[in-house]
Amino acid sequence: MKLLYRAALTALVFATLSACQHTDNNPTSNVTEVSNPDSAVAQQLASKALESNLAYELVESLTVEVGPRLAGTEKDLLAVQWAMDKLNALGFDKVYKEAVQVPVWHRGIAQATITAPFEQPLVITALGGSIATPEGGIHAPIVRFDSLDALKQASREQVAGKIVFIDHKTHRHKSGKGYVITVGGRSRGAISAAEKGAVAIVIRSIGTDSDRMAHTGMMRYKEGIAKIPAAAMSNPDADLINAMLKRDTNITMSLTLSSENQGFATSYNVIAEVTGSSKPDEVVLIGAHLDSWDEGTGAIDDGAGVAIVTAAAKLIQDLPQKPARTIRVVLYAAEEVGLVGGKTYAKDHADELEKHYIAAESDFGAGKIYQLDLRVNPAVFEQVQQLHTSVSTLGVALGNNQASGGPDVSMLPRLGVPVASLRQDGSDYFDYHHTPNDTLDKIVPESLAQNVAVYAHFAYIMAQSNINLRPIAKKQ
Amino acid sequence: MKLLYRAALTALVFATLSACQHTDNNPTSNVTEVSNPDSAVAQQLASKALESNLAYELVESLTVEVGPRLAGTEKDLLAVQWAMDKLNALGFDKVYKEAVQVPVWHRGIAQATITAPFEQPLVITALGGSIATPEGGIHAPIVRFDSLDALKQASREQVAGKIVFIDHKTHRHKSGKGYVITVGGRSRGAISAAEKGAVAIVIRSIGTDSDRMAHTGMMRYKEGIAKIPAAAMSNPDADLINAMLKRDTNITMSLTLSSENQGFATSYNVIAEVTGSSKPDEVVLIGAHLDSWDEGTGAIDDGAGVAIVTAAAKLIQDLPQKPARTIRVVLYAAEEVGLVGGKTYAKDHADELEKHYIAAESDFGAGKIYQLDLRVNPAVFEQVQQLHTSVSTLGVALGNNQASGGPDVSMLPRLGVPVASLRQDGSDYFDYHHTPNDTLDKIVPESLAQNVAVYAHFAYIMAQSNINLRPIAKKQ
Repeated sequence: MKLLYRAALTALVFATLSACQHTDNNPTSNVTEVSNPDSAVAQQLASKALESNLAYELVESLTVEVGPRLAGTEKDLLAVQWAMDKLNALGFDKVYKEAVQVPVWHRGIAQATITAPFEQPLVITALGGSIATPEGGIHAPIVRFDSLDALKQASREQVAGKIVFIDHKTHRHKSGKGYVITVGGRSRGAISAAEKGAVAIVIRSIGTDSDRMAHTGMMRYKEGIAKIPAAAMSNPDADLINAMLKRDTNITMSLTLSSENQGFATSYNVIAEVTGSSKPDEVVLIGAHLDSWDEGTGAIDDGAGVAIVTAAAKLIQDLPQKPARTIRVVLYAAEEVGLVGGKTYAKDHADELEKHYIAAESDFGAGKIYQLDLRVNPAVFEQVQQLHTSVSTLGVALGNNQASGGPDVSMLPRLGVPVASLRQDGSDYFDYHHTPNDTLDKIVPESLAQNVAVYAHFAYIMAQSNINLRPIAKKQ
Repeated sequence: MKLLYRAALTALVFATLSACQHTDNNPTSNVTEVSNPDSAVAQQLASKALESNLAYELVESLTVEVGPRLAGTEKDLLAVQWAMDKLNALGFDKVYKEAVQVPVWHRGIAQATITAPFEQPLVITALGGSIATPEGGIHAPIVRFDSLDALKQASREQVAGKIVFIDHKTHRHKSGKGYVITVGGRSRGAISAAEKGAVAIVIRSIGTDSDRMAHTGMMRYKEGIAKIPAAAMSNPDADLINAMLKRDTNITMSLTLSSENQGFATSYNVIAEVTGSSKPDEVVLIGAHLDSWDEGTGAIDDGAGVAIVTAAAKLIQDLPQKPARTIRVVLYAAEEVGLVGGKTYAKDHADELEKHYIAAESDFGAGKIYQLDLRVNPAVFEQVQQLHTSVSTLGVALGNNQASGGPDVSMLPRLGVPVASLRQDGSDYFDYHHTPNDTLDKIVPESLAQNVAVYAHFAYIMAQSNINLRPIAKKQ
């Protein structure tokens, strides 16, 4: 404890000294003049955030009163109504919603059994977007691959008529980078398998846990390539198959899915604003997605994000003096089924995007934020970092200039919009992600409050900044 | 590391000194004369156990090649065949099986939804032995109780026509004592609920995890009291209901179970023996149960126990000089559904029980053994403890004289048979117990090997001892 205390104290002193130094060295700098009072307000906002329970109350309310809210379902519309009611009750300057056409997918049942050499039931889940198996299910040998790449290198003869089993393991990292390595097997595995004549695909779940729960998530088909049923099995089930393969390479599986794609429905991006005091047409966008998968209650994905950005904006709404720019909270529709709300927003707001000062989405659970990455003009990158120096008191380091911004704002940099990634500790995120285990108990209130503090700090500083962030850095 | 090393060294030196002291103080004691060479052999057995992978190979084989093996099912008979084959292959002096009539229960489907005030699906599982709900399911208000005791104190008016929700939380303890406190709600809750006119019971799972998995386990009905359907919900689901109750005390649930009791079938206790060299008719019994619940692969419950006692006996089988008494490995049938194999054994071997020197069952997962409890004649208790002194080198303390012996031998003390409890660290046992999560990956090979070492050490010492353990201590 003492060591930690000393480290925190040292960091604080260092941050204070840095700020002083900066003032001394650049007495006439526009940046510095603005940054000091802004930093003070930002830190006050952060302090209030750390004392507030609002974000936890919001995610509790959403998970308890709505729960699972798969895009295009009745529950999805209930979530939209929940959000409209909450945002109105919180007293934002503006609250509105914008229609989004979302694909509707029904999970149905998912059953799989290894029928030989040792009969054992498996715990699986259908991947989002998968078609059903034919009447009576599929019974076929399985063929195992280490990865999607290994499948791509296989011959048609190895794969045709079989159920492809991609056995990639997802490794645990604070940044979640293990997911990036394996998720292609989920999203594109069915295409590669079908190209070689596979009859179905059942992957090892993209998850870092050893719970006997399968992780769902979106998969895609490709025009002109046969559609085959796609599912994921839990990590212990994948281990079981490997143990069987050591004994006998001839393994057969029986697979039944009754999933169905059911066309399109109307959902909504729900939006709230704190109107800017002097530049109301300029927007600092902080977002999250309102939809969730259907098996958990959507707590860490992405009830937490909804709560974080809403609570952060509410703190700014309650300031006696609003910041210059408008803070816009966007609760996106249908992220899980293909970033649909994000894409629709980018399209519908195309004319306004040049007025988007910066955008960031919270969609990585409720772990503490440890780093602030940006994607701004490289010439002003360090200046912008300096504006955020006091975020170090919240345990956040200043990172790189290669931020993606988050899923629903990931298309904005291509359209010239600066973004930021407030990077969360996702060490356990992929233990629960896209499983029934995505429930409220996985959220630590203190960590959630730290997120609110960092978002409020970030949004306020950005809404006051006088630096032109454009043109943004190219992707390396 | 250094601290640990020093602690281990200190323990070792202390144990050595104690042994020396004992010899000095009691130069003519019969106990000491026997204990020294026996202790040396016991420690050699333990050393071999720590280097052996046999137990892990056995539990891997059982979980992979058989998997779930609910009493009275085809898989149960497959497990019996697996055990006969393994025990024969290991070269025990005798291998045989004894018929046991076991109740057959079929799980069927289990579905529950909170229908008001907020519609949400729950993750539940049927309790073993439960009847089905009527056609069309049950739709009724729920009534919550803190515990089985609170239910017992309720009025009929509070309970009649409702679904009882017992909300007891099971707390984590090394000894597993949290389970003992709450399990009555599972086993006897349906009787108390039905006595007051409840239409069903759905308890908070008897589990220490926060996974969204429900824990099954046996429940009972009582002659003359109505049978009502009984299920358990996961801990996060119980939390969800509590959060709803804060908003609205009127909660309704829809419940569907299709469970069925299907009469009786024949299963088997599978037995292997290392024949004693000089007292072959006297028995040191080390047991475990072969059956498992149906949702996991029965790794920690009780594949681990099967592997531990089998591997321990195999080490003794391979000794050049067998111990005086017979080591009998009993792999009990149908423990989960009511200690059926244990009761049948006690009945069928009634005439032979006076020749049972001591009995112990391994049925608490694969955590390391930390304490050896006994139930022997109080007059010789300390003498018997002294025989086991060298078990301290395995990290095991000598405990009390109030051992139960384990579920399937728990009826033996009433019949005069001494028992021992080789107590395992069960800190995480009730995270996985009776869920789909009971899979091989939950077993740490090193801990499993320590169990084998302690069982081999214990069994050998007991098979050589010259102390009369009877009459055993009364239960305090």
